[in-house]
Amino acid sequence: MSFDPASLTYNDAGLIPAIAQDATNGDVLMMAWMNADAVARTLETGRVTYWSRSRQAFWIKGETSGHTQKLVEMRIDCDRDCLLVLIEQVGSACHTNRRSCFYTALRDGAEVEIMKPEAK
Amino acid sequence: MSFDPASLTYNDAGLIPAIAQDATNGDVLMMAWMNADAVARTLETGRVTYWSRSRQAFWIKGETSGHTQKLVEMRIDCDRDCLLVLIEQVGSACHTNRRSCFYTALRDGAEVEIMKPEAK
Repeated sequence: MSFDPASLTYNDAGLIPAIAQDATNGDVLMMAWMNADAVARTLETGRVTYWSRSRQAFWIKGETSGHTQKLVEMRIDCDRDCLLVLIEQVGSACHTNRRSCFYTALRDGAEVEIMKPEAK
Repeated sequence: MSFDPASLTYNDAGLIPAIAQDATNGDVLMMAWMNADAVARTLETGRVTYWSRSRQAFWIKGETSGHTQKLVEMRIDCDRDCLLVLIEQVGSACHTNRRSCFYTALRDGAEVEIMKPEAK
């Protein structure tokens, strides 16, 4: 039976969180949101496509920056209300030009930057 | 300067998504939600504590199942609206007794179970 994006559970805004994980080394790179159409587009095109809550528009990752995400595999959690997308990330996933958005760690009660922006 | 959980960005329900990643092998195990108090409790106790949206109560992971999550490190994303918790997972993170909640993959357009429940 083929997969239907409508079978997932979306929040009141029609969105589902999608965690992007580097398929090569397992690093968690970012979390963003998809609606059912974004899920379908991601699967159809193989290019990870989110829904931008601020712009209220599809967000084909890397369309302007060139920092694309190629879908390797999409996974669904037990409650069907969260997605894990394994990807091949070109360049940096974060808009700060860092490889991952999770570049701040809490160590000894303080925030520590653990990742520098990549060279342009 | 010490970290203040109130400095994070929470949604309208006062919650922030927290992605739990196995600190040992990098597997993404689950995603659940925390409020500011759950963030503080997790940091104070070293035991990952979520906020259960269904029960509207603190959810000290593993308190009843024994499948605890020991905090190794908490990380914050660039928008301060998502957390990554690196953990030591005892047993299975998923209520289905699978190691990870993300045990369903989409392959060739169909859902495939890629992980079996663990032996009890």
